[in-house]
Amino acid sequence: MALPNTNRQILLRRRPDPDVTAGLFEAMDAPMPAMGDGQFLVRNICLSVDPAMRGWIAEAANYSDPVPLDGVMRSFAVGEIVASDNPAYAVGEIVAGWLGWQRYSVADGSEIQRKVDPAQAPISTALGVLGITGATAHVGMLGVCGPREGETVLVTTAAGSVGAAAGQIAKIKGCRTIGVTGSDEKARICTEEFGYDAVINYRSCEDLSAAIAEAAPDGIDCCFDNVGGEQLDAVMEHINVGARIAICGTIGMPSFPIPLGPRMNRALLVKRARIEGFLVLDHFDRYGEIIEELTGWYRSGQLKDREDVADGLEAAPMALERLLKGENTGKQVVRLGPDPS
Amino acid sequence: MALPNTNRQILLRRRPDPDVTAGLFEAMDAPMPAMGDGQFLVRNICLSVDPAMRGWIAEAANYSDPVPLDGVMRSFAVGEIVASDNPAYAVGEIVAGWLGWQRYSVADGSEIQRKVDPAQAPISTALGVLGITGATAHVGMLGVCGPREGETVLVTTAAGSVGAAAGQIAKIKGCRTIGVTGSDEKARICTEEFGYDAVINYRSCEDLSAAIAEAAPDGIDCCFDNVGGEQLDAVMEHINVGARIAICGTIGMPSFPIPLGPRMNRALLVKRARIEGFLVLDHFDRYGEIIEELTGWYRSGQLKDREDVADGLEAAPMALERLLKGENTGKQVVRLGPDPS
Repeated sequence: MALPNTNRQILLRRRPDPDVTAGLFEAMDAPMPAMGDGQFLVRNICLSVDPAMRGWIAEAANYSDPVPLDGVMRSFAVGEIVASDNPAYAVGEIVAGWLGWQRYSVADGSEIQRKVDPAQAPISTALGVLGITGATAHVGMLGVCGPREGETVLVTTAAGSVGAAAGQIAKIKGCRTIGVTGSDEKARICTEEFGYDAVINYRSCEDLSAAIAEAAPDGIDCCFDNVGGEQLDAVMEHINVGARIAICGTIGMPSFPIPLGPRMNRALLVKRARIEGFLVLDHFDRYGEIIEELTGWYRSGQLKDREDVADGLEAAPMALERLLKGENTGKQVVRLGPDPS
Repeated sequence: MALPNTNRQILLRRRPDPDVTAGLFEAMDAPMPAMGDGQFLVRNICLSVDPAMRGWIAEAANYSDPVPLDGVMRSFAVGEIVASDNPAYAVGEIVAGWLGWQRYSVADGSEIQRKVDPAQAPISTALGVLGITGATAHVGMLGVCGPREGETVLVTTAAGSVGAAAGQIAKIKGCRTIGVTGSDEKARICTEEFGYDAVINYRSCEDLSAAIAEAAPDGIDCCFDNVGGEQLDAVMEHINVGARIAICGTIGMPSFPIPLGPRMNRALLVKRARIEGFLVLDHFDRYGEIIEELTGWYRSGQLKDREDVADGLEAAPMALERLLKGENTGKQVVRLGPDPS
């Protein structure tokens, strides 16, 4: 196929101060990248938009180096190989990996997480429930929480892509699942699509702690938390002896300065409970088996995917802004159109 | 032997408000208890005084029912069987268990943790490093923290009975150990008796966080914490990726109302760290093997015991008050004198 002369990219121009807005980014045309020995060229089809991007673009030290100013925005993407000098990656294959917010990416394989078989599932699921999102839910729910059949599991950002997958995985394991989410529409989706046994709209309920008590009369055994702050405070009031809390994200808290909240030591001690942060990137040695298990659940209908699709590369920054405001439902992706003529 | 007609006991008369003082207790004479079928009578030799007693006498719900007002103060003790109607417990045997702050206890075996062989070690060690204290350190350090050879392990209340055992167990496992304690005398004991590689006096150092940074140039992999509050805050600033923090106690924090402190979510996430409360009483199914391992280390000289001995039953309440003020060094016990004539 004919390739264009330029490669449209989204660059990071400024750092959050402290909010993440679409205005931090700018779309620019770069020359098409040159492909060196052993490399291949990917035409991106779908880009990922993730809450973790808030950390990636911040200046403060984090688990990864910050995206440099004027650099292409870091992201997962899925695309088709359109040229290759690498025998392990053939033209026409679909790959998912660290390909960035841009139309074309040159890769050598180190950026690639996996090849994607379009016959198994729509390829965009490789960014969602069969990709980093599903893997995050899998690692946090099964690796950190380890819920047992009959236990009560609470998930915050329950309608979000990671939360929805976490809730469904707990359900697959025979747990009673409680979702906490931020709108009546999301609450409806939690119940109807993701099978939560109870859902709480934290914005409309008067007293979140009381709502949790009502939804979880036997207390909370596991919590998969993406929020922190007052939502987790309310959960802590209802944990059972031996509870396990996985910290996946802190979207409800400012990163800096560190906010104050009730100290958890006493609750953790009295309840012999555990709270643990995790990062899916630490578990890539198990990525293959995790995706295989998720794919089995997806194909049997036990693990549903929901996407919020934004159209066109230039829509990515606003999609991120909306995501961080909680305005999306489901996995936020950006679908790229045909090359501009 | 002739038994006295009365049994001297320490009763709990009032609840903490909020301080624990000797004045909460009163010594009284009760009639000698009657021994029923299958029971035996223990003459207590040594009583235990433990930080957990703060929780046991508080009204607020805890992991065990509160000691009732006007009831005998709950405690571990070690004593000699002086009469028995139970074939499993012979006159002359030494037992350790829930025998209370009193001269004589009637037992049926359910209160007993173990029989004590005086040939193995001084019997008072059954309340300390070879008893609940050592077992607490063992469970928290090996079961929760799980330090690996070469890692850096920090212990708060490092000269206390549990802390000293925890630090020595980490040392046995090949770790670099850092103790945090509250006086220069205790700091000296930490180094000279308990083998800590570095010690910090939190009262005299200007900046605890800076002192930890200096003492732990490679960061903290494990923390065995008895304190909470600002000491743990300072530790959190220096944890490594994958750190494990065992919460054994919260002696540096009020129980109620729950104090505020910096939220830990972000640090736990970025460092993929774990913080977990534990209670030794949950692990009594492994008590025998734990005590056996501790006894081996004690007899080989790798695990040292240090006792702070108060004389006479009536000294127990003040010994508790001093313990909670940090004025003791080593395991606080009360040694009972001969029966009053």
